[in-house]
Amino acid sequence: MEALKEAIRRYGRHLGNGIIKVDAFLNHQIDPALIAACGQELARRFRHLEPTKVLTAEISGIGPALMTAYALGVPLVFARKHKPLTMGDDVFFATAPSHTKGGDVTLLVAADYLRPGDRVLIVDDFLATGATILALARLAQAAGARVVGIGAVIEKRFEGGRDRLRSLNVPIESLAVVTGVEGDRILLE
Amino acid sequence: MEALKEAIRRYGRHLGNGIIKVDAFLNHQIDPALIAACGQELARRFRHLEPTKVLTAEISGIGPALMTAYALGVPLVFARKHKPLTMGDDVFFATAPSHTKGGDVTLLVAADYLRPGDRVLIVDDFLATGATILALARLAQAAGARVVGIGAVIEKRFEGGRDRLRSLNVPIESLAVVTGVEGDRILLE
Repeated sequence: MEALKEAIRRYGRHLGNGIIKVDAFLNHQIDPALIAACGQELARRFRHLEPTKVLTAEISGIGPALMTAYALGVPLVFARKHKPLTMGDDVFFATAPSHTKGGDVTLLVAADYLRPGDRVLIVDDFLATGATILALARLAQAAGARVVGIGAVIEKRFEGGRDRLRSLNVPIESLAVVTGVEGDRILLE
Repeated sequence: MEALKEAIRRYGRHLGNGIIKVDAFLNHQIDPALIAACGQELARRFRHLEPTKVLTAEISGIGPALMTAYALGVPLVFARKHKPLTMGDDVFFATAPSHTKGGDVTLLVAADYLRPGDRVLIVDDFLATGATILALARLAQAAGARVVGIGAVIEKRFEGGRDRLRSLNVPIESLAVVTGVEGDRILLE
């Protein structure tokens, strides 16, 4: 994913405290061709595990997760952070501490859309502390579904998420790895 | 878009007060192939207006707007409802009353991503009262950009949004039109 690394080098900025701004192509403005390529690459890496569903969290995960699901030919489910009027009462939920907003975030998925027998590929924009992804995994497990893999567009390796997710015992793939920051610069593997 | 109408007939439900539940394929679980087809169709209808950017509002607009932008080969910008830490201070904002949540919603776009000279195609999942789309149009206008068209996946014609948007004087396209509701049934044009 040289194009992704090039976009991070060109547009990415470190805002302090390990927070990386990539809103020129990933989480405010989206470069559809680049994010489609990310989705195709994640699909290529996980297709052999035969996922039946891609699971992500709103908001910024939706783009790359949708493109991954599109490439795999399976539905995408995005966990909601607020219960919309259209959501019934049969709901799975899990909480995760929010890195960029402070406090806890609750993730909700309607029971209709995660079922026992589902083979769930979790996809998110970032793998940082791993807290959001761990909450998504708990949602899948609460539904009796099986997590078969974890994919992220950008991994911030210095935040240790990969270690935290090891207990899930599934393959973890990221398309670009940030090893650290130096002032406003982002250091890529 | 017969496939879209078929999905609405099969999975859509009226929950009362004109609120339509389509979370099986559009705004909680997403059917990527169907939503990609919607994006391709919107792109086909608006390509001649040479949009340089697609603009939508988080959250449920992101899927169809991303697929439209992908088909057009232009960037997508999704207006945020909360200011993330990664957003600077040079921001356009507009408010709209929320139909499904009550109260007002503020939409924000970083000034970097809407520029004078941009030809903006607004895409959303629903065209209902038109309030969200009108707020998106005001964001584009605040940036000095020009709105060239409005596309929606589902239009709830009985809520009058199309009339409300007439003053923008741009083409409005929707892929399925709900003319009314009857009990829990959804009546399609």
